[in-house]
Amino acid sequence: MFQIRTDLAVETSEKRPDGKEVSGIRVEKKKRGEDVVITKVCIDTQKAAKTLGKPRGTYVSIEADQMMEEDSGYHREISEIFSEQLKTFLPKDYRNAKILVIGLGNREVTPDALGPKVIDHLFITRHLLEEFGKYLVELDQCCSISGIVPGVMAQTGMETVEILRGIVAETKPDLVIAVDALAARSIKRLNRTIQITDTGIIPGSGVGNYRNAITEEHLGIPVIAIGIPTVVDAATIIADFCMGLMEENKSEPEEMEASVRSLISPKLNTMYVTSKDIDEAVNRLSFTISEGLNMTFVPRV
Amino acid sequence: MFQIRTDLAVETSEKRPDGKEVSGIRVEKKKRGEDVVITKVCIDTQKAAKTLGKPRGTYVSIEADQMMEEDSGYHREISEIFSEQLKTFLPKDYRNAKILVIGLGNREVTPDALGPKVIDHLFITRHLLEEFGKYLVELDQCCSISGIVPGVMAQTGMETVEILRGIVAETKPDLVIAVDALAARSIKRLNRTIQITDTGIIPGSGVGNYRNAITEEHLGIPVIAIGIPTVVDAATIIADFCMGLMEENKSEPEEMEASVRSLISPKLNTMYVTSKDIDEAVNRLSFTISEGLNMTFVPRV
Amino acid sequence: MFQIRTDLAVETSEKRPDGKEVSGIRVEKKKRGEDVVITKVCIDTQKAAKTLGKPRGTYVSIEADQMMEEDSGYHREISEIFSEQLKTFLPKDYRNAKILVIGLGNREVTPDALGPKVIDHLFITRHLLEEFGKYLVELDQCCSISGIVPGVMAQTGMETVEILRGIVAETKPDLVIAVDALAARSIKRLNRTIQITDTGIIPGSGVGNYRNAITEEHLGIPVIAIGIPTVVDAATIIADFCMGLMEENKSEPEEMEASVRSLISPKLNTMYVTSKDIDEAVNRLSFTISEGLNMTFVPRV
Amino acid sequence: MFQIRTDLAVETSEKRPDGKEVSGIRVEKKKRGEDVVITKVCIDTQKAAKTLGKPRGTYVSIEADQMMEEDSGYHREISEIFSEQLKTFLPKDYRNAKILVIGLGNREVTPDALGPKVIDHLFITRHLLEEFGKYLVELDQCCSISGIVPGVMAQTGMETVEILRGIVAETKPDLVIAVDALAARSIKRLNRTIQITDTGIIPGSGVGNYRNAITEEHLGIPVIAIGIPTVVDAATIIADFCMGLMEENKSEPEEMEASVRSLISPKLNTMYVTSKDIDEAVNRLSFTISEGLNMTFVPRV
Repeated sequence: MFQIRTDLAVETSEKRPDGKEVSGIRVEKKKRGEDVVITKVCIDTQKAAKTLGKPRGTYVSIEADQMMEEDSGYHREISEIFSEQLKTFLPKDYRNAKILVIGLGNREVTPDALGPKVIDHLFITRHLLEEFGKYLVELDQCCSISGIVPGVMAQTGMETVEILRGIVAETKPDLVIAVDALAARSIKRLNRTIQITDTGIIPGSGVGNYRNAITEEHLGIPVIAIGIPTVVDAATIIADFCMGLMEENKSEPEEMEASVRSLISPKLNTMYVTSKDIDEAVNRLSFTISEGLNMTFVPRV
Repeated sequence: MFQIRTDLAVETSEKRPDGKEVSGIRVEKKKRGEDVVITKVCIDTQKAAKTLGKPRGTYVSIEADQMMEEDSGYHREISEIFSEQLKTFLPKDYRNAKILVIGLGNREVTPDALGPKVIDHLFITRHLLEEFGKYLVELDQCCSISGIVPGVMAQTGMETVEILRGIVAETKPDLVIAVDALAARSIKRLNRTIQITDTGIIPGSGVGNYRNAITEEHLGIPVIAIGIPTVVDAATIIADFCMGLMEENKSEPEEMEASVRSLISPKLNTMYVTSKDIDEAVNRLSFTISEGLNMTFVPRV
Repeated sequence: MFQIRTDLAVETSEKRPDGKEVSGIRVEKKKRGEDVVITKVCIDTQKAAKTLGKPRGTYVSIEADQMMEEDSGYHREISEIFSEQLKTFLPKDYRNAKILVIGLGNREVTPDALGPKVIDHLFITRHLLEEFGKYLVELDQCCSISGIVPGVMAQTGMETVEILRGIVAETKPDLVIAVDALAARSIKRLNRTIQITDTGIIPGSGVGNYRNAITEEHLGIPVIAIGIPTVVDAATIIADFCMGLMEENKSEPEEMEASVRSLISPKLNTMYVTSKDIDEAVNRLSFTISEGLNMTFVPRV
Repeated sequence: MFQIRTDLAVETSEKRPDGKEVSGIRVEKKKRGEDVVITKVCIDTQKAAKTLGKPRGTYVSIEADQMMEEDSGYHREISEIFSEQLKTFLPKDYRNAKILVIGLGNREVTPDALGPKVIDHLFITRHLLEEFGKYLVELDQCCSISGIVPGVMAQTGMETVEILRGIVAETKPDLVIAVDALAARSIKRLNRTIQITDTGIIPGSGVGNYRNAITEEHLGIPVIAIGIPTVVDAATIIADFCMGLMEENKSEPEEMEASVRSLISPKLNTMYVTSKDIDEAVNRLSFTISEGLNMTFVPRV
């Protein structure tokens, strides 16, 4: 009916319009302490991928209300859980890996600045290791970390994947970690959910061969994508509300669908919903992610 | 029914839920060229103010699609129309006036950065005139302009009006011009409407004696407020859509009202809708406003 | 001879051109651990103030190489020492005090952004206490903290002290803490010295009745100034080098003085020296100061 | 004696320590109006390159006091002269060229933010031309412009040339234009000189095969470098003053040299001199350059 947009696998798997179960998906939920819920969604078949509009692969989401708190103690805890979950996506010998971390998004737009701000706080070590080697005592346990904020197409005139393919070819990392702000379907997940996936980043419906996807297929090395939803698509939220209304009033779906469609203007597709304190949320969450990356890849510093 | 929020008088006067005319309001519309519509709304009586939820006073709005264009030529034209309309709010001898321009809003949140960015591009002259006097040849036609970006309460711990009252008492300007990002009711007015009003800035329903209003009553000198809508309240847009849906389907208002109310969560009240290119829009529009202020108050520089 | 400029009392007291001791000054030095040197300079008489070009009062400086390290552990240690020294300037019952913290300087100029960046990371509590009162459990031990970044005169057209006098009159704090980037005489003290003083901030030679001084005399309440040197005046560094050269070469002072004076152009007075990594230094040091203020005034949050 | 550092060919060619003329160099000076001086320096031989410490090639500098004025009219004039001089470096058919513009330097350090700020104001067209083609009426005369702000090694862990080599290989531009903040020898040239050169950018002494040079040799396509001096190296300014002092006092060069050398500490090499209003200067100058690039490559928009 409407294009319901969400970047979160946990939301896609949650609810099918027809209520039927989808085969080819496995969902595991577990709690950590009182507040943290970790959900693992595995999309195993191409058919399931098509049904859900998300590529095959593994998606872990960490949800916790305390991500919205100001207390830095809570954030340390989340950084640790995030680091632990991230490690389940890494190869065994990742301590010797060369990793390129990418901060996607537009630094000038507050809810989209998550990726760039994570790079700001990252311990960058590649140039030090290249110059001084592993003998550099304090860094002997650390990965080679490089980072880039490529900007968005309106700023560069280039597809992000073009920029990245060039840098990967030249600097030869073993692994890309791409950090990006995401769109959720529900405002209740905004600023309180971290998703880690091994599928990379595919725009749009997420299935098919997009020329601008940031994936292993396009970069030639594995891509782990990390994201936090900071916006909801405006058309999505309105369609969801209208559908809720229809259900409550037991209207004829077809009739209502037509009227909802007539109300949603194309302009709405260039709009998104975000929270009033998004500046503080993005500052805190970018720090939670960068701390988690630092404790994973550059311990003891 | 729902609290429909808009800071634009032109939207308030447009459409009454019951379809009746409101007495005590005068609305004049005129076109400039093909694209620019200038609307003057005068709210003359306290009763009309209460009905519309906006204080008594004069509101001029300038609407033009070309505000959304990148072309700087169009923006110059808008700056000139804005300057001309602004002058209708100024006393005759404003060339000798001391004016304090206030950039309201939070610089860290893209759609709320309009006010602070206007101050960035303003010709500030007060300190030059105080030091060198009017003899300073090139500035002999210019007003004394000072500017401040007070920040928002979460950053300062103080009401904005407290900060301003202190600065006004100390530096004794004749007039305050307050620039702020506004909320519209309809996304079609976002980033393409400038409102000028002599009422100052009153939060909330806009009627009553708010301790944090930035008005002549609280500052002791006239306050002209200039604003551009850059966001729509999330609850407002959803309520509007739902109501549209109800009208189309001729449902019983009471019944539907109850269901809509049940769907709109309190969390939605901390959310707003904005456009994806809001960074570019705010950069352009802040420049349009600051150019208009500069050509009004500091000509020939 | 030349106007040697330094904002650090520890540098003024260090070395007199004529080698004589100045009466009316007391200097106490103590070490903390291996690296930290704490120096307390008391200027007791008006005559000593005139000789040293610094107002009467107490100046504590904390010097440590580890302020230049990236390690956040070291910075926590410095924050604690800073907090402990700051407390020696506070009244006994400061836990009930209302404190206004001022971030002086120009956010757009990297070495001058220290003050504004400290405010960015401060726990602001005044508005919460005003609204919810001390019952708000987690804040029951905390001071009422407000903060402001007034901007510089080229941005506002107003003297900073005018803005502050207005805000102080309106919001009635008990104490002002003013944070500012300082000028040192020697590059060896840049980015590794914190000065705390009870004299407030007086521009220029520091003695006399300056209309733009930020002092108890002008604001009506005590002013504690906190600063870190991030620049050296260009004329100062050159004069110092030339004088060193002269001493080494046993030239006639008068003769050399004339030639040095002839070399130093007025343009040099608008120049300063800073370090290439000043962005990282200011980010780290602003955090060290804000953490120290937070642990002093808003403990346990 | 000391490493006198300057990125300006016009300063290198100006004055040889021994007063002798250097063969293999041609210098042409011409005036434009009353204020603008255009100097063309051609370094023709490898020997001259070695003597001057600058690679073989053509260097055009535009010097004008009005670059330091606030008046935007003056800046438009400079943008036009800059555009005209830039065209002398371009191939005849540049209107069909694909051009990658690079904003070098560190956005977080005010005098080093020139390059990044130029990219902010550039008309980026590559993505539009790739999507819509030349039929897009308003752009039919325009070049394909892409832009990137690669960041500095401490932020990315990668040599800038590695990043650029990758992007060039992937997006295949015909020409690179690299914009960077420069170091002058003399403060009198700061913020009032634009240099255009066909040599690219070579760090250090500028001669030899540096792995991190941004040159045609390393990128495989021509590199035009555009720069404005915003800093003077601290050791350079001090050595210059000391040498001036020595000359005035007719000291023995060898003796004085030794003493100067002993005074200049290694720490001084991490220091630079800049002006107090560098934020406004960089804002204005980045606009002058970006306007000049826009009028050259994307006319009529």
